[in-house]
Amino acid sequence: MKGKKGSLVIKISIPSEKSPKQESGGDDSSPAARKWAREVWEFGKEDTNRVIFAVKVGLAVLLVSLLILIRSPYDVFGASIIWAILTVAIMFEYTVGATFNRGFNRALGSLLAGIFAVAVMQVAMACGHVAEPYIIGLSIFVIGAVTSFMKLYPSLVPYEYGFRVILFTYCLIIVSGYRMGTPIRTAMERIYSIGIGGITTLLVNAVIFPIWAGEQLHRELVGSFNAVADSLEECVRKYLADDGSGGQPDFSKNVMDDFADEPSFRKCRATLNSSTKLDTLASSAKWEPPHGRFRQLFYPWAEYVKVGAVLRHCAYEVMALHGCLHSEIQAPYNLRCAFGPEILDVADQAAELLRSLGKDISNMKQSLHTSLLNRVHLSADRLQASIDMHSYLLTSGHDFPAHPLPPGQPSDDKTASGNCNAQPADSYHEAMRKQQRRLFSWPSREVDDYEDGGVHDSEAIQRMRTLESTAALSLATFTSLLIEFVVRLDHLVDAAELLAKMAKFKEEAGKS
Amino acid sequence: MKGKKGSLVIKISIPSEKSPKQESGGDDSSPAARKWAREVWEFGKEDTNRVIFAVKVGLAVLLVSLLILIRSPYDVFGASIIWAILTVAIMFEYTVGATFNRGFNRALGSLLAGIFAVAVMQVAMACGHVAEPYIIGLSIFVIGAVTSFMKLYPSLVPYEYGFRVILFTYCLIIVSGYRMGTPIRTAMERIYSIGIGGITTLLVNAVIFPIWAGEQLHRELVGSFNAVADSLEECVRKYLADDGSGGQPDFSKNVMDDFADEPSFRKCRATLNSSTKLDTLASSAKWEPPHGRFRQLFYPWAEYVKVGAVLRHCAYEVMALHGCLHSEIQAPYNLRCAFGPEILDVADQAAELLRSLGKDISNMKQSLHTSLLNRVHLSADRLQASIDMHSYLLTSGHDFPAHPLPPGQPSDDKTASGNCNAQPADSYHEAMRKQQRRLFSWPSREVDDYEDGGVHDSEAIQRMRTLESTAALSLATFTSLLIEFVVRLDHLVDAAELLAKMAKFKEEAGKS
Repeated sequence: MKGKKGSLVIKISIPSEKSPKQESGGDDSSPAARKWAREVWEFGKEDTNRVIFAVKVGLAVLLVSLLILIRSPYDVFGASIIWAILTVAIMFEYTVGATFNRGFNRALGSLLAGIFAVAVMQVAMACGHVAEPYIIGLSIFVIGAVTSFMKLYPSLVPYEYGFRVILFTYCLIIVSGYRMGTPIRTAMERIYSIGIGGITTLLVNAVIFPIWAGEQLHRELVGSFNAVADSLEECVRKYLADDGSGGQPDFSKNVMDDFADEPSFRKCRATLNSSTKLDTLASSAKWEPPHGRFRQLFYPWAEYVKVGAVLRHCAYEVMALHGCLHSEIQAPYNLRCAFGPEILDVADQAAELLRSLGKDISNMKQSLHTSLLNRVHLSADRLQASIDMHSYLLTSGHDFPAHPLPPGQPSDDKTASGNCNAQPADSYHEAMRKQQRRLFSWPSREVDDYEDGGVHDSEAIQRMRTLESTAALSLATFTSLLIEFVVRLDHLVDAAELLAKMAKFKEEAGKS
Repeated sequence: MKGKKGSLVIKISIPSEKSPKQESGGDDSSPAARKWAREVWEFGKEDTNRVIFAVKVGLAVLLVSLLILIRSPYDVFGASIIWAILTVAIMFEYTVGATFNRGFNRALGSLLAGIFAVAVMQVAMACGHVAEPYIIGLSIFVIGAVTSFMKLYPSLVPYEYGFRVILFTYCLIIVSGYRMGTPIRTAMERIYSIGIGGITTLLVNAVIFPIWAGEQLHRELVGSFNAVADSLEECVRKYLADDGSGGQPDFSKNVMDDFADEPSFRKCRATLNSSTKLDTLASSAKWEPPHGRFRQLFYPWAEYVKVGAVLRHCAYEVMALHGCLHSEIQAPYNLRCAFGPEILDVADQAAELLRSLGKDISNMKQSLHTSLLNRVHLSADRLQASIDMHSYLLTSGHDFPAHPLPPGQPSDDKTASGNCNAQPADSYHEAMRKQQRRLFSWPSREVDDYEDGGVHDSEAIQRMRTLESTAALSLATFTSLLIEFVVRLDHLVDAAELLAKMAKFKEEAGKS
């Protein structure tokens, strides 16, 4: 009985153990499924164009299928109409321009393949029945090898798909022509069929809620401007706020997990990697007719790529600034705070200019950025002047980190670490100037020490001092990179203004 | 007569004018054709894999076509064998891994499409003849929309081709099944046919002179190491050799024409843009069986991508150094020469370490790089110490450019501009130390001037001085970036050693 009871207990306990598992399993899978569904929903909501695109593809395939599902067109076109479906499935691209481009590739490829096939077929038939299969086989080999070689050629890479089309269309026409003996009819039927598929694709893609590559390119470029501006601000703010207490996470770990705590940086790096995307969109946009906001014939899409290239060269400086931020040798927090207001001013002005450029492109307005550019230059000059005036802090201030901070600079107040920029600049500069005089009258004892002997004894001290000095110089690096960024903004403004001029953006007299 | 003569002269002169034109036109077109042919020849010679690939495609297409050209297999397989040709043309990729990947996409896509089609067909037939076309039409629409939406989803983007295959295979099977009434037989015939095409493609691609994605990835990574090393050396050498007399070409022009005079820089920038290429090759390489030098099962191809990412983070510093080189504010030539030997030493050591890392990966050897790394660190320390010791030159030396150079420094000898590094460092440093003492005893008159008044008068002078100081600081930036580059090398060595460990490279005891 006891054993039975025991087994009973066990029996009871097993299901009771299982049931929560099953429940939790059920809970796990149900939220997982729900989470997945929500993710898909969010993905669609994020950009409704994705849903539109999907519905359009469904519609285009359905339309072409109707030609077969309904009796009368099937009787007219026959079985070769299935090629129309293949054409839709292969040709339908996300943007109108890409679809046009692919359609052009397919049309030209099919046409060339048809011409080759008919020509070779005539030659083969003229050579008699024995030679015919050899000639056809040789021609297939040659076409296969030549198209494959040509599509690797750098300038022909964009037409890769066209070469594929030539290859398989040629093979299909010539082989079925050989077996059925009517190459021209086979070619013609296939071309009709492909034409129907192609036209359906183009119409559905370009007429029903068209997704223009030009519009995408436009938005992508504007987004890049904002990404670089955000990233610059984020980087500078983090540089000034970081008092070294938190400790930087390991660099190599960061490289792997994409600096998870810096969303703008990731966007900026995405901008750096977006050159291919811009190129693709621009080459697709060239195929699009004037549309929407871009009513000009021969709209200068290539200029977008150029502006993107100059912007990327600005973004390289942001990457270098970011490198300074994550560098292992860091300028002391006090020193960073000392130049905080000026650095922040330059970054804010530069970011404002970037956003203004982006906004003008976004609104297709043409306005002069001279006043903004002047302000950026002024603040950069101020930063330079400030660095110049207090340059002793950067290099000869060997004992700077040990110095007590001037009154009014809350160094040990950690809650104020983010607010060091609120410090009025003038009073602090006043205090620094006094320090400067003291330093200039300082005897260069330590250097003499090193020179006259005791090198072995003071090597460790020397090493320490070098590190400290380099730490201070890292601030000079940060500011130099920032100033170099500002210098590159000139080129960016030039490129953006050239784009505005060539694309004939609306001129705005009020803004200067 | 005179008029006639004149006209005769003119008449004569016209053809004589034309004929050289025609001749030159003939010469132009013939060398153009010859040039083009030579270019194509060079393109093939540059990488014979291209020719091998082209011949292999031709062979694969020919093999499949034989199934139709020869009577007996055609009698067995029938007309549906043309799908084998389509499969070869679409599936044949450059590398073995990519072909396997595409084959997998095609096989799974076709299988899923076949299953869907048969299932829907059964349902549709069960619903009676009236409802059948509606159900089929609806299912085509749904499949078209769902596959198109899913292929946009970021994690499913690599399977884009698979979704395309599902879509068109489904449509083809269900539509021709509807018209011919034998969906299962249609599906089966097509799957046989696709199978034959796929197997032919895989065999030809993997057996005859296979081009492995893993090998390509391996070479690409080694090439990246060399590109970064070359670019670093090129950049540093140019920085030290440039005496400002030549004048930098316009920056924005350079952005457009890709810095035509700096081949290594372009390679380095290509490295920065190669992240997609490495990803693609690594994802292809995963599909490849153990082969050649890579005999380990589950070879860590993903580590290559990680090493590439760390290397890219090193290359960002090279880009920033390059930015310094092309910056508009430049440190005076004398100053650059002063630190020349140390800068050059760091660059050479760093480049040597990079090349050694690249060579070890290339030879699949595992060796310790501690001695090389130590040497790089030592030279970086030396550079830091040197900068620290002469930091007055960088910041407070307002009038440095006007200073006469110490004896032994040929400043006006332009032919020696590239040789300034040959200067023995010690004697120059000796001279600088003397200068340093002088500067430290210098009264800080100019700063006092600025402080006590006369700000408006001396504004222009102040501006000039600031520029000069910033110019000198740009050298500090250059060296800081170089040192940051060295710091990042640690991470690179770690990543490379992890790769060596995981890929079980041969250990080499002799080297340290």
